[in-house]
Amino acid sequence: MDIEQFRKAGYQAIDRICDYYYSLQGRAVTSQVEPGYLRKALPALAPTSGEDFQEIADDYQKLIIPGLTHWQHPSFFAYFPTACTFEGMLGDLYASSACNPGFNWSCSPACTELEAVVMDWAAQLIGLHSTFLNTSEVGGGVMQTSASDSALTAVVAARSRYIRENPNARMEDLVLYTTTQTHSLGLKAGLVLGLACRALEVTAENSFGLRGDTLRAALEEDIAAGKKPFILIATVGTTSSGAFDYIEELGRVASDYASLWLHVDGAWAGVSMACPEFREICHLEAINRYADSFCTNFHKWGLTNFDASTLWVRDRKDLTDALDVTPEFLRTKHGDAGTVIDYRNWHLGLGRRFRSLKLWFVLRSYGVEGFQKYIRQSVQLNETFVSMIRSSPQFTLVAPPSLALTVFRLEPQTTKQPLSAELLNNLNRLFYGRISARNDILLTQTVLNGTFCIRFAIGAARTTEEHIKQAFDILSAEAELTLKHWEEPA
Amino acid sequence: MDIEQFRKAGYQAIDRICDYYYSLQGRAVTSQVEPGYLRKALPALAPTSGEDFQEIADDYQKLIIPGLTHWQHPSFFAYFPTACTFEGMLGDLYASSACNPGFNWSCSPACTELEAVVMDWAAQLIGLHSTFLNTSEVGGGVMQTSASDSALTAVVAARSRYIRENPNARMEDLVLYTTTQTHSLGLKAGLVLGLACRALEVTAENSFGLRGDTLRAALEEDIAAGKKPFILIATVGTTSSGAFDYIEELGRVASDYASLWLHVDGAWAGVSMACPEFREICHLEAINRYADSFCTNFHKWGLTNFDASTLWVRDRKDLTDALDVTPEFLRTKHGDAGTVIDYRNWHLGLGRRFRSLKLWFVLRSYGVEGFQKYIRQSVQLNETFVSMIRSSPQFTLVAPPSLALTVFRLEPQTTKQPLSAELLNNLNRLFYGRISARNDILLTQTVLNGTFCIRFAIGAARTTEEHIKQAFDILSAEAELTLKHWEEPA
Repeated sequence: MDIEQFRKAGYQAIDRICDYYYSLQGRAVTSQVEPGYLRKALPALAPTSGEDFQEIADDYQKLIIPGLTHWQHPSFFAYFPTACTFEGMLGDLYASSACNPGFNWSCSPACTELEAVVMDWAAQLIGLHSTFLNTSEVGGGVMQTSASDSALTAVVAARSRYIRENPNARMEDLVLYTTTQTHSLGLKAGLVLGLACRALEVTAENSFGLRGDTLRAALEEDIAAGKKPFILIATVGTTSSGAFDYIEELGRVASDYASLWLHVDGAWAGVSMACPEFREICHLEAINRYADSFCTNFHKWGLTNFDASTLWVRDRKDLTDALDVTPEFLRTKHGDAGTVIDYRNWHLGLGRRFRSLKLWFVLRSYGVEGFQKYIRQSVQLNETFVSMIRSSPQFTLVAPPSLALTVFRLEPQTTKQPLSAELLNNLNRLFYGRISARNDILLTQTVLNGTFCIRFAIGAARTTEEHIKQAFDILSAEAELTLKHWEEPA
Repeated sequence: MDIEQFRKAGYQAIDRICDYYYSLQGRAVTSQVEPGYLRKALPALAPTSGEDFQEIADDYQKLIIPGLTHWQHPSFFAYFPTACTFEGMLGDLYASSACNPGFNWSCSPACTELEAVVMDWAAQLIGLHSTFLNTSEVGGGVMQTSASDSALTAVVAARSRYIRENPNARMEDLVLYTTTQTHSLGLKAGLVLGLACRALEVTAENSFGLRGDTLRAALEEDIAAGKKPFILIATVGTTSSGAFDYIEELGRVASDYASLWLHVDGAWAGVSMACPEFREICHLEAINRYADSFCTNFHKWGLTNFDASTLWVRDRKDLTDALDVTPEFLRTKHGDAGTVIDYRNWHLGLGRRFRSLKLWFVLRSYGVEGFQKYIRQSVQLNETFVSMIRSSPQFTLVAPPSLALTVFRLEPQTTKQPLSAELLNNLNRLFYGRISARNDILLTQTVLNGTFCIRFAIGAARTTEEHIKQAFDILSAEAELTLKHWEEPA
């Protein structure tokens, strides 16, 4: 494809993306294809001769779009939002065109420098202490692919620091702590590194957040058994229910165990700290005082296309001590002089995308006020939803509403006798089965300490109050049908 | 930004990318900015109110482009090519617009299915055995971010398999093998996982490739000392000099040690196996017979934008046994039934980009023949360069030319007496210093068993014979100037 062919195909791509967004609301949220649909439609081998690009672009419309679940659909309430803005797409497009891997300063100065600046913008947007800024030259921020990568990087840095400080510790004795509510990133970090992971219990009474006493008891128990606690992954805004661990308590406990690293994962909720009124619920003060590292994903609720996981550390040397490998073919004048950040030593891989560009575009185009407005709007929409749930005789909240996430279940007041926990779970599985069979709305399930329930996550940029009301009506109607078809045990 | 504003900004982005590519040849290859240039030019905080997108787009031109080193410049001969095609950019653009994270089948069927199909296309393009195809339902392929990620994933799977088979093994005793010429991904995998990494020696006589005897001796020595060898990362086409480990010999040795995983990294050279005539040098037959996993990066010499690291495994269960964590909120009907691939269990993170789209676009638009033509052209250009080096009295080859990579140095025949190794190294450092001070050409350095030398890597899509000749003329002129200013010791 030459430059003029690209111009033509590029215009068409832009036009078709416009069409896609105009058409979004009229589409089914979920894809209706069956497993294997695409393999049947495609040849088994790449073509021998090149094909006309028009044919390829048309196949995107014909074969790929029908196989997409539309995460930007205004009635998408599943998982978490993947905010995807035009500004982000354009940032990604320019980044693709420059194709700068940015693994050291010299090979692409703009990549490194923009990331260092924009990470400082983002840190200040959400109120992080100046020690986390790149300008501090002590702490600093780096963009990772996902919250899993960010957490894994923190765990590697923590383990490496622990082993430096305790050179006789055996890997088999190290323990990484999460809670039963932590995102699978905790367990996965343990699996990847081959280290023990202990998931601490949380209770509904504490709104599924981890308390300091629970942590201390576990630490004491494990230390008495010869184990070596080296990191706690705490969460502000869990995936399951948007729960907040008690960071202030955990930080105080962690302070008593010098070698224990505190990583706070705010993958979803962290960006809400752009609004001062949500900083307390996210425990910003305690994060600033105690966290060794903090992560939030601008590619979730932060208006920026995947991948834009932002990770800050209190001491950048913890990263570089753990990850610096500089072979001869990567040595450069500026890197050797230590005057620049070489981001390859701040993450697990070597090559990296020019990720900061899209975040720069988003933060400039929205401004702090525009960003706040979007967050507040999601929270407000959730308040609307919560008030409908509260005033309904069919539904109950299973956990406190959390920012733009609500976890609820069907719990009818109309049965002849109170239902057992097991029956209620079965009833809700039926209810969820009905909802997930629909294609005009998408929600996901979870289980909270044995209670099967349903998550309603708001954040797609095009969701309005109208969509929330529609969603509630659908849920109410499906609830009624579930109950109607359900044979209540005698 | 609304849809019509996006159309306008999108057209402009396409136009400006066209301008960029028209202007590329007239630009300096390397950025001329000084460290800190961008922080000086940007405010310390994100703006309070949103800015006009035109201003942002203009700042990309004004502030970012001057800070780019132009990896697509026809006179870029540094590191490795990052092939960046218009087809790849368009694939990335469509992928950004759909914003599908693809961590399981249900949330974005097209992502999963296209990846499964395109990985099979890619496997067959480079001649991998059918056991590595996704259709085999035993082995399979997955796209990772980088070769470092691919290798790390392989090492995690290998360690996990080793521990399953040898449950009493201590982590401290595990040994990962690389050579002194392996990309830093080997050492980094060791650092990340906290495992010992032993770099085996290679010699110039063996063209810097690892021999079976060297491996066997190391294994025997380590096993006798109570160590537990669990993986060898072998390379076809090292970063330093394009060296090929003797995969057939290594595979035979590995067969004698049942628990030893053989990962073959062909990050750069692997895609050349699209041409049958390069399969022997890349040891395809031995890879097919012995490798537990194989990686090549289509984002290097494979015409596809970063990130497109393709990883194949002989047995997918080695990945999922090591990496499967499925919390309740990720459970789906199809995933539970095992009828679909859930790619989140094939890599370290959870979220992932829709990476296969760009590779699909590239393979279709070029076709197998177009892809081969591009690889052959790079190799041919390198042959031209090599013949100029060979016929020059100033230069010598330090290693055999490898596909599209040449490692050479200044070794003048004109000195009064033969120069010591140290003096020759000093002379070449001076020579390289002169070359790297220029901005119309970019090469990188390396050290091969103590010999300082210079790498010349071909692969940018716009490089022609004319650029090779220009480059050689520049190198010759700089060589003369280096010698002129060099005071030969008495």
